Amino acid sequence: MCGIFGISGDKESAKLSYIALFTLQHRGQESAGIASLNKGRLSYYNGMGLVNEVFNPSILSSLEGDTAIGHVRYSTAGSSTVNNSQPIYFKCKYGEAAAAHNGNIVNAAEIKSELVNSGAIFQSDTDSEIIIHLISRSSQKDFVSAAADQLPKLKGAYSFLFLHKDALLAARDPYGFRPLILAKKGKAFIFASETCAASVIGADIIREIEPGEAAVVRGGRISFFRFAAPERKSRCIFEQVYFARPDSIICGQTVQNARYLIGQHLFRELKSLKADIVSGVPDSGTSYALGFSKASGIPYVPVFMRNHYAGRSFIQPDQKMREFTAHLKLAPIKDAIYGRKIVLIDDSLVRGTTSSKIIGSLRKAGAKKIIMAIASPPIIAPCFYGIDTPTQKELIAFRLKEIERIRKFIGADELHYLSLENLIKACGRGDRGFCSACFDGSYPV
Amino acid sequence: MCGIFGISGDKESAKLSYIALFTLQHRGQESAGIASLNKGRLSYYNGMGLVNEVFNPSILSSLEGDTAIGHVRYSTAGSSTVNNSQPIYFKCKYGEAAAAHNGNIVNAAEIKSELVNSGAIFQSDTDSEIIIHLISRSSQKDFVSAAADQLPKLKGAYSFLFLHKDALLAARDPYGFRPLILAKKGKAFIFASETCAASVIGADIIREIEPGEAAVVRGGRISFFRFAAPERKSRCIFEQVYFARPDSIICGQTVQNARYLIGQHLFRELKSLKADIVSGVPDSGTSYALGFSKASGIPYVPVFMRNHYAGRSFIQPDQKMREFTAHLKLAPIKDAIYGRKIVLIDDSLVRGTTSSKIIGSLRKAGAKKIIMAIASPPIIAPCFYGIDTPTQKELIAFRLKEIERIRKFIGADELHYLSLENLIKACGRGDRGFCSACFDGSYPV
Amino acid sequence: MCGIFGISGDKESAKLSYIALFTLQHRGQESAGIASLNKGRLSYYNGMGLVNEVFNPSILSSLEGDTAIGHVRYSTAGSSTVNNSQPIYFKCKYGEAAAAHNGNIVNAAEIKSELVNSGAIFQSDTDSEIIIHLISRSSQKDFVSAAADQLPKLKGAYSFLFLHKDALLAARDPYGFRPLILAKKGKAFIFASETCAASVIGADIIREIEPGEAAVVRGGRISFFRFAAPERKSRCIFEQVYFARPDSIICGQTVQNARYLIGQHLFRELKSLKADIVSGVPDSGTSYALGFSKASGIPYVPVFMRNHYAGRSFIQPDQKMREFTAHLKLAPIKDAIYGRKIVLIDDSLVRGTTSSKIIGSLRKAGAKKIIMAIASPPIIAPCFYGIDTPTQKELIAFRLKEIERIRKFIGADELHYLSLENLIKACGRGDRGFCSACFDGSYPV
Amino acid sequence: MCGIFGISGDKESAKLSYIALFTLQHRGQESAGIASLNKGRLSYYNGMGLVNEVFNPSILSSLEGDTAIGHVRYSTAGSSTVNNSQPIYFKCKYGEAAAAHNGNIVNAAEIKSELVNSGAIFQSDTDSEIIIHLISRSSQKDFVSAAADQLPKLKGAYSFLFLHKDALLAARDPYGFRPLILAKKGKAFIFASETCAASVIGADIIREIEPGEAAVVRGGRISFFRFAAPERKSRCIFEQVYFARPDSIICGQTVQNARYLIGQHLFRELKSLKADIVSGVPDSGTSYALGFSKASGIPYVPVFMRNHYAGRSFIQPDQKMREFTAHLKLAPIKDAIYGRKIVLIDDSLVRGTTSSKIIGSLRKAGAKKIIMAIASPPIIAPCFYGIDTPTQKELIAFRLKEIERIRKFIGADELHYLSLENLIKACGRGDRGFCSACFDGSYPV
Repeated sequence: MCGIFGISGDKESAKLSYIALFTLQHRGQESAGIASLNKGRLSYYNGMGLVNEVFNPSILSSLEGDTAIGHVRYSTAGSSTVNNSQPIYFKCKYGEAAAAHNGNIVNAAEIKSELVNSGAIFQSDTDSEIIIHLISRSSQKDFVSAAADQLPKLKGAYSFLFLHKDALLAARDPYGFRPLILAKKGKAFIFASETCAASVIGADIIREIEPGEAAVVRGGRISFFRFAAPERKSRCIFEQVYFARPDSIICGQTVQNARYLIGQHLFRELKSLKADIVSGVPDSGTSYALGFSKASGIPYVPVFMRNHYAGRSFIQPDQKMREFTAHLKLAPIKDAIYGRKIVLIDDSLVRGTTSSKIIGSLRKAGAKKIIMAIASPPIIAPCFYGIDTPTQKELIAFRLKEIERIRKFIGADELHYLSLENLIKACGRGDRGFCSACFDGSYPV
Repeated sequence: MCGIFGISGDKESAKLSYIALFTLQHRGQESAGIASLNKGRLSYYNGMGLVNEVFNPSILSSLEGDTAIGHVRYSTAGSSTVNNSQPIYFKCKYGEAAAAHNGNIVNAAEIKSELVNSGAIFQSDTDSEIIIHLISRSSQKDFVSAAADQLPKLKGAYSFLFLHKDALLAARDPYGFRPLILAKKGKAFIFASETCAASVIGADIIREIEPGEAAVVRGGRISFFRFAAPERKSRCIFEQVYFARPDSIICGQTVQNARYLIGQHLFRELKSLKADIVSGVPDSGTSYALGFSKASGIPYVPVFMRNHYAGRSFIQPDQKMREFTAHLKLAPIKDAIYGRKIVLIDDSLVRGTTSSKIIGSLRKAGAKKIIMAIASPPIIAPCFYGIDTPTQKELIAFRLKEIERIRKFIGADELHYLSLENLIKACGRGDRGFCSACFDGSYPV
Repeated sequence: MCGIFGISGDKESAKLSYIALFTLQHRGQESAGIASLNKGRLSYYNGMGLVNEVFNPSILSSLEGDTAIGHVRYSTAGSSTVNNSQPIYFKCKYGEAAAAHNGNIVNAAEIKSELVNSGAIFQSDTDSEIIIHLISRSSQKDFVSAAADQLPKLKGAYSFLFLHKDALLAARDPYGFRPLILAKKGKAFIFASETCAASVIGADIIREIEPGEAAVVRGGRISFFRFAAPERKSRCIFEQVYFARPDSIICGQTVQNARYLIGQHLFRELKSLKADIVSGVPDSGTSYALGFSKASGIPYVPVFMRNHYAGRSFIQPDQKMREFTAHLKLAPIKDAIYGRKIVLIDDSLVRGTTSSKIIGSLRKAGAKKIIMAIASPPIIAPCFYGIDTPTQKELIAFRLKEIERIRKFIGADELHYLSLENLIKACGRGDRGFCSACFDGSYPV
Repeated sequence: MCGIFGISGDKESAKLSYIALFTLQHRGQESAGIASLNKGRLSYYNGMGLVNEVFNPSILSSLEGDTAIGHVRYSTAGSSTVNNSQPIYFKCKYGEAAAAHNGNIVNAAEIKSELVNSGAIFQSDTDSEIIIHLISRSSQKDFVSAAADQLPKLKGAYSFLFLHKDALLAARDPYGFRPLILAKKGKAFIFASETCAASVIGADIIREIEPGEAAVVRGGRISFFRFAAPERKSRCIFEQVYFARPDSIICGQTVQNARYLIGQHLFRELKSLKADIVSGVPDSGTSYALGFSKASGIPYVPVFMRNHYAGRSFIQPDQKMREFTAHLKLAPIKDAIYGRKIVLIDDSLVRGTTSSKIIGSLRKAGAKKIIMAIASPPIIAPCFYGIDTPTQKELIAFRLKEIERIRKFIGADELHYLSLENLIKACGRGDRGFCSACFDGSYPV
């Protein structure tokens, strides 16, 4: 997964991009970059690491101009090196340009092979690099036309931002797999993966860019056009289940609210239930647990302390120290657990190994009964559109098939999954245009 | 505030210290250090920054031996330089030694002046360095006796760990201002500021070191002695209110549980109340709000998204960008706020400026009514024992005196403080041995 | 100017390249890089700075395989960024490859423009990048054929090394502007800009690669072919005058010896001469001065101490400190100078500003008379083949025309230049195949 | 060995110190530091590495004030850590002070033991730290008196600079082992280990500080006093033989000139001699060889190319690469060596291992005969006054006793040493006040 951000019309464009990317940090911690346009010339700076590790005030000051795009990366295609970081800067017959991409191109290998055979040279091993070669070989007269001409050749999931001296261009694939929103701050136009990145800098959210739609900002004005016919709307439902920030607005409600509703549905789907408390696996499980608590009347009590200094930055001093890692990140809160029947909610169950450790940790702290409730259906198929799921045979729900076998594997006393029907109901509030291929194996492309 | 940790009897002493210090990271983010003892020789490594920034596997491997002490620092006395980081390493007539200190010495200036006049040379400007000079000038025959002999000269708050070839020595001041606990992991003895640092490495919590008590580990055995008569027990109540980790155990209950009880008391102290939801200022406010919700039946709903990537590591790109800082750390969750009467709980009110911003942010997001509830009494006096409070005239409760004036200043519709009586009741569960000087001005020393 | 090195047939190929590049460091201090081939896969590492700053043992160990090429860069075309460092790594239809270039392509702009118009994307702004696009668009069936097919399109100066899974390929332009030698170490074949890079690792020097010739090493065997008809041999004479290392062998003699001979010619060209000592501007001037001393009987005495810690690494603390820079690099040795008539030899006179400072420094130290002798003719025309000369109007010999005016500008009492005839005689020992365009304006291409 | 520098009366004191230390870099490459005095407050910055690695313009700008002292270190006592770098900063009863030391205190262990027993705490393991404890325990009324009172307690070699708000104080031990000169630049007074450090910034050399003399600069005026009776003048003769820079002036002549005279003596001491060329081991050997050439009429020809990028900064990539190290630093110049009878001059013979390698390298390059001439007598005794000689049993001249056996060990055809008589004659030009303990075992202290 990745996060993208673009702004045109504010002379602090790079600094605002920095703040916005910081807010999108949860979408990618591997690399970060910003490209800006000043008097027809592009500058850019990419680096490995977190947004605040990559940038400092002097780098940001060197990125002048009123238009900029930025990117945070979590590798789903291509390895983890600075060559693969974005925005991708390139010089082609239309001059300098930069591109930022969120998504996954399904026919990448095929197009890349054609390009290479006709003499193209690749610098990265990302699928994102394909579009810049397609554009540079277009016969269109200008950059924007070239992009509009070539984007339909890509199949799969993509939200793109392009920076060129002619325009800032935003485009979303015909299925709308990956999010892309439009916002406005004063006279400036803003594009972002999530609304939180626009809200943080005081912008007003306007709307989503529609599937198959492109937006062009030039000379302070915005225009829209369709570069491809829209297909069946297929927004990734996993954004609300796990990926997006709780304060981002999707389908007219915050992600936190969607999760609260899911928690309520989850309780209602359970026939009978005897529990002392309900809790969630931090951080995403909390909202579900609060909704469950509201619907059931069972008190919500945190059972784990999450160490926010841990995570990507904690380096194991030694193999022998591995046994302490689980506790280091999630420390059990003993008197909240001891002797209690606990409903524990997590967003999803992928390989099942983490849940198994968490349940073991609760048992050791004296839990009397553990009812595991999953805020989504069993994941039975991998994602080809940008979510980093493992291969199918690593998916526990595909591997063990029956819920009873999964329950035994993770060590819970009970195990419940939410129905896809209720998941869509809670997330879409009437709108059913979601991709749910990971739950039902029905791939739009 | 600072955090200290010591272990004797495990050949992975430095690596275990590293994990433990990581767990005490909330007690100090300025510098970190570990000293270890191997075959009678000390090694040490200190650095500025977070525990995982200061250490790496090769540094940890170089800190050999089965006994180690560690320290994380948040400066309350002395400036922020590596000279002031701890453990303090020194060579004196008893040979090499290292010291780690949590607390604040009240008569530091007086002792330092005497020492300097008689030829002592100081390398840091911390109050902690005093004890090493006192020890090195003692006429006692060995290091432990010298420490026992000199510690009573210090007045104020201290928990000390000393590493010397003879022994690992732990000592707590006669009032017990700062915490210090004893734990055991296999044959190893452990000392730590909080239980969470011992639990994370699988140790069993034994008990607190008593006020005026010292513990000596040598040759695999532990012994205890009193180096000073205990005074009126004066544990800092602010540890439970704000400083300690929710999963740490103090007075037989987790800090989370103490805060839950406080939240219940807080509701009961309010006469009449009309509210749609109750929420807390992250992170400490959450536990209070859950207790309040339980007692009142008013649903708990998070109203702020806290960005855990922010905090100390976010660098303002520019003065003009300041306006976005509040939102960057605490982003309002709009549909949780809009049109609602909200009880918002925070642990304490110091200067009042942060609360004022937070309330403004809620108003802007459409809150209908904001009832601010503070989980402790008004702070009217500064702390001289290690908590980093501002000068008295900066304290809003001292400055404005009346609650009504404070309410106006922060912009709430209502403002309530918890009584000291109920705070002590919730925290001590019968034990009243707390220092509450910041609330009542009654200083034990 | 740049330095290149290649080796095939030794499993320590990257480490040997590192040592060899270190020996070629005088040819470029801006960036360094090594690419190696292991089991059909390429690895590479480039960085800004000196060879020993860019590489460390762990990076070198990661560059596995028995074939490698390396590069040190001094920018003559393209700006100073890591994008412009070499070897250039690229993926094309023949798979992975890497290229290292020394020289300057005269028709670069023209070819680049054609390539860009047909869709090529450029990552650097060096002229070197052109060849990789030409190769990747060739219709030949394999990499070596593609290179042989495309190299003739380049006009100008080049010695190239290409690394590809099929072969290590070395090629030198039809005029032979830039050097390229072949050596052998055990079973391994070696290519290098100068013999010193091969000698340092114990290799035996075989011969030069001829103008228009290519050498291919594959499967442990070497083969040679002509990819272009040889033109009038036009080796850069400035290599011996200034650029090459004294211990490198060119035209069958060390560069030191050529300079010694030049020094002897220089004395013979001077009609009458009264001087106490002869000295040289360090470091290149020393060999000339020793030859002059031998021919004239005038004792050689160093008059400047060169600070070898200075040079590229000294950072001016302040503009006001500039006046001390000359002395910092070249400190006058007072008793060697005071009251003496001095013949001072320098390799060449480009802008004249450095000589002016040096002569001023001698005067201040009490020199009685300063006879400046230049070991080459007046430079009247810029180099288009890789030597970093300034624009024509900055060249003092072009600007002032007459020797008397130049003498006044630099402040010497006398000024002599060596004749081109004797320069060629000393450098070539019979062979006259040099480019001397900078001295006579007669450009081969 | 170390280098020290001090200046009082120029508001660019730290920047001038930086340039001067750069010029003293040959005296110590391990660490560097500068302390400055501004409005009665001291600032300092020390670090490991070369002067230009430790400092940058912003650090230098932070060192304000018109008085500063600096230090470069090469460890002869104490290990290589930043704790041992100088100037040593300390706070004592006289307030803040800093000290820079060149030399070696012979009774260090004895004094340190007394200090520690009476409660002193040491931070470094250098002998230099002793004086600051002695000063801080003095009963004198001010800092300068305290220093004057305590310095006589030190036995051995020392030149000291002290920075204190009262004064800049310079002091040299009663034997004058280590150099210390006084210079003047405008109104500013300067102290330095060598004249080159003063000359580089345009200062005029005044005189040496005498053995047992101290100089005090305060309020823009200088005064002198004796803190100890002068002993037999015992300047280290090794300064001229090896350590000092060729352009530094000692005993009224440059070091280069002393070496030139030594070279002449060396020829005269050899009875009969048949040789084609004379050469020197770079860099110190060159001056000797030039003098020898002048006296003998045998031409001087360099036989080695020294790589000035090598040295401390070259990191062996691998043990297997060791064989290339000698060639990397000193590459033989083949046509200067082949078939020739060579007189090779080196400054001294310590362990003999380097000479053995160098001679092997000449043989391999085809030298017909190698006559090794050493510009000083056999070293038979270690130095206790600051030169980093090995233990006595590692000294080849002590170990093998007879010249013939040494000759065989190093592999030369002939081996000659200079007599002590002529060494002193050339260095002192009449003045015989040198310490020559390393050559004759007669230790002044």
